[in-house]
Amino acid sequence: MSDLTKVLLDEADMPTQWYNLVADLPQPPPPVLHPGTHQPVGPDDLAPLFPMALIGQEVTAERHVDIPGAILDIYRLWRPSPLYRARRLERLLDTPARIYYKYEGVSPAGSHKTNTAVAQAYYNAEEGVRKLTSETGAGQWGSALAFACAQFGVECEIWQVRASYDQKPYRKTMMEVWGATVHPSPSEVTEAGRSVLAKDSASPGSLGIAISEAVEMAAGAPDTKYSLGSVLNHVLLHQTIIGEEALLQLAKVGETPDVIYGCTGGGSNFGGLSFPFLREKLAGNNDVRIVAVEPSACPSLTRGRYTYDYGDTAGLTPLMKMHTLGHDFIPDPIHAGGLRYHGMSPLMSHVYELGLIEAVAKNQMECFDAGVRFARTEGIVPAPEPTHAVAACIEEALRCREAGEEKVILTALCGHGHFDMGAYDRYFAGDLTDYDYPEEKVDQALTRLPDFEV
Amino acid sequence: MSDLTKVLLDEADMPTQWYNLVADLPQPPPPVLHPGTHQPVGPDDLAPLFPMALIGQEVTAERHVDIPGAILDIYRLWRPSPLYRARRLERLLDTPARIYYKYEGVSPAGSHKTNTAVAQAYYNAEEGVRKLTSETGAGQWGSALAFACAQFGVECEIWQVRASYDQKPYRKTMMEVWGATVHPSPSEVTEAGRSVLAKDSASPGSLGIAISEAVEMAAGAPDTKYSLGSVLNHVLLHQTIIGEEALLQLAKVGETPDVIYGCTGGGSNFGGLSFPFLREKLAGNNDVRIVAVEPSACPSLTRGRYTYDYGDTAGLTPLMKMHTLGHDFIPDPIHAGGLRYHGMSPLMSHVYELGLIEAVAKNQMECFDAGVRFARTEGIVPAPEPTHAVAACIEEALRCREAGEEKVILTALCGHGHFDMGAYDRYFAGDLTDYDYPEEKVDQALTRLPDFEV
Repeated sequence: MSDLTKVLLDEADMPTQWYNLVADLPQPPPPVLHPGTHQPVGPDDLAPLFPMALIGQEVTAERHVDIPGAILDIYRLWRPSPLYRARRLERLLDTPARIYYKYEGVSPAGSHKTNTAVAQAYYNAEEGVRKLTSETGAGQWGSALAFACAQFGVECEIWQVRASYDQKPYRKTMMEVWGATVHPSPSEVTEAGRSVLAKDSASPGSLGIAISEAVEMAAGAPDTKYSLGSVLNHVLLHQTIIGEEALLQLAKVGETPDVIYGCTGGGSNFGGLSFPFLREKLAGNNDVRIVAVEPSACPSLTRGRYTYDYGDTAGLTPLMKMHTLGHDFIPDPIHAGGLRYHGMSPLMSHVYELGLIEAVAKNQMECFDAGVRFARTEGIVPAPEPTHAVAACIEEALRCREAGEEKVILTALCGHGHFDMGAYDRYFAGDLTDYDYPEEKVDQALTRLPDFEV
Repeated sequence: MSDLTKVLLDEADMPTQWYNLVADLPQPPPPVLHPGTHQPVGPDDLAPLFPMALIGQEVTAERHVDIPGAILDIYRLWRPSPLYRARRLERLLDTPARIYYKYEGVSPAGSHKTNTAVAQAYYNAEEGVRKLTSETGAGQWGSALAFACAQFGVECEIWQVRASYDQKPYRKTMMEVWGATVHPSPSEVTEAGRSVLAKDSASPGSLGIAISEAVEMAAGAPDTKYSLGSVLNHVLLHQTIIGEEALLQLAKVGETPDVIYGCTGGGSNFGGLSFPFLREKLAGNNDVRIVAVEPSACPSLTRGRYTYDYGDTAGLTPLMKMHTLGHDFIPDPIHAGGLRYHGMSPLMSHVYELGLIEAVAKNQMECFDAGVRFARTEGIVPAPEPTHAVAACIEEALRCREAGEEKVILTALCGHGHFDMGAYDRYFAGDLTDYDYPEEKVDQALTRLPDFEV
């Protein structure tokens, strides 16, 4: 244990490989199935949407994947990201615990999303793709992809959920600064969008509709592919650089975590931080507890069913075995937009089923309270998503105070809240509430799962 | 020259002293005068507004001032700040020049302002001050002070210019996250505010009015003092940690700057970066050109008169000898709100008169164009203020391309533009224009200078 506030790595020590947890699991995750045939999908099924390099990473059994030099060059703009010891928060809590947070808000777009965006833009550019399409809700993913595409001269076209487009115009502008074209979704540009608008010209949109629009545009245009910001194996793979760096940084100060907390929406932030530590645990090098923190309003791991379901609302994607609340389940309007996903990454779900990680759910008000306490001590105003992990860390640190335990707690502060001040404003104004587990709504959504046997 | 993208310093190497340029100047700056007596002000004149420690720093002749440990503890949340080599921008410009930028946007409030805010909050807290008041225009300074006050348990009350309060509500929310109270200015809380509202209930406010309100509240209340974010000697002193770090970082990669560009409003960002390099120049250790970059709409150094004038619009402050466009000059509405100040810090003005620094003016459109080019290559979206320095760097780098010169260019990227996306949005929409030097308006304002002889 050193007396540093933040632990930095030199660029020379930045990891040059991503880590593929699948190689070390006692059994492989179940296959992804074609929505029509219900047979495992092959590369050709995915080729209209993704470049071959990423399809290869999606199913690779290699333990490590080299990070190409052109990606490392761009990572160096903000990586290695700092690991902080939350000394001022510890003092506020009067805890003997030592709290460390790995901060991904230093990336250009302000979150961990940039780690995979740069990789995806690179592999697409390498295979001659001229345009990438994607959807974005709160805007974190869309802005990360816009930045990444600008680095490789790839065009970027984003469908931003209408409600978010209107409420958070600054995320749209940020995408435009990086040269992207942004449409409010539903849009007149696609068949999917037009059909929604025909029924409801004032539709506020949804992530499901925006995905449909982006997929439709990619599938129908030459030299155009689609890009997804979480859930898939290759996305989690790219995010493991977070955990690889954190391992080196903790080693630098002689620490081993006793528990890791991370927020989970699609699972890429949490997987990125925790998988390298899980590898070390499987190898007997630590005995860390790894705990996913999800919102009470959308608790796919703690309350969802582990079964095959679609990745999108409309049911266009391949079928993935995952923890799901039902593909047409619409979560309550919590401000952590990045955690409002009906499913959980298949790999994360599999690891949870294997008993290698745990999960808890947190309600909104406790999370905002934690976010404010964090901001007032550590300075950084967290995005609503990581306040879930911060809330869990605070709870653990207070347990340590009661028990007099010097635990080492690690978490991922996956993004800053500079574009989420409207949420904090509503919190201070008393306009926010808790949303408990919506049992009935989930039960209904689960009756609409795809009907087949594997 | 190394192949690093960013040059980091360990916490152990963070400077522990601020640097006072006055100690090394061939002649001292002219004294500040009492507005009533026109005699040099003494500590007692300033005591109602500032704590004695800061008054001491304002006039100290010591070359170095130790940074107290409690301030260093907080600096460590983001300091040492990174020094970047703008490799991707260089490549875009196809220049043999090497461009380095010192990035202060990593601070909690997103700009260099936090360096002095923490120091000011500390010294006030040490002397038992329970509340600090201040004004803010764009919100950078107000949010920095709010953060700093939260660290020392000092109350913080901010008057935010009404137009900005309405247009940039997120800055207000950020101040509230850190526990500050924010009033739109003019407000009903002060005599100064009420008298403006009596004449115009819809007044959009001005920095001058907001200063009057904050000063009135501080002067009239026990245990309450006032805090200023630029212009004064002690503010520039606190900012020198930027340049001290940059000196160490450039030395680490074996570089010496040939030219330094920095944007200037009140002068603290530019002074902070350049004064340590100017010390080395005076000692014969480099031959750097130091160039202030100001907006064409508000060019106090290049076009203002060097004379005694008030620091505020209403004429309540002591008289300072400085470059001024006239204390009631209202600049055109450029988006670089932090550069819209009628005067220039007395110390910076003095250094300019001594011929130790140069100055140029840049118009708004060139600056936004430079900001977008910077964002698309380096990733960071700059605040409108530092785009002025970026524009000057780009011009210099292109000159180097023409001349085939391998110059080393250094600049200060004093803040990110996460709260300035509205300005970029207007730029893309074609709603922004240039504003040339407003000769007639300045000539008129200069007729209203305080009428006396020294």
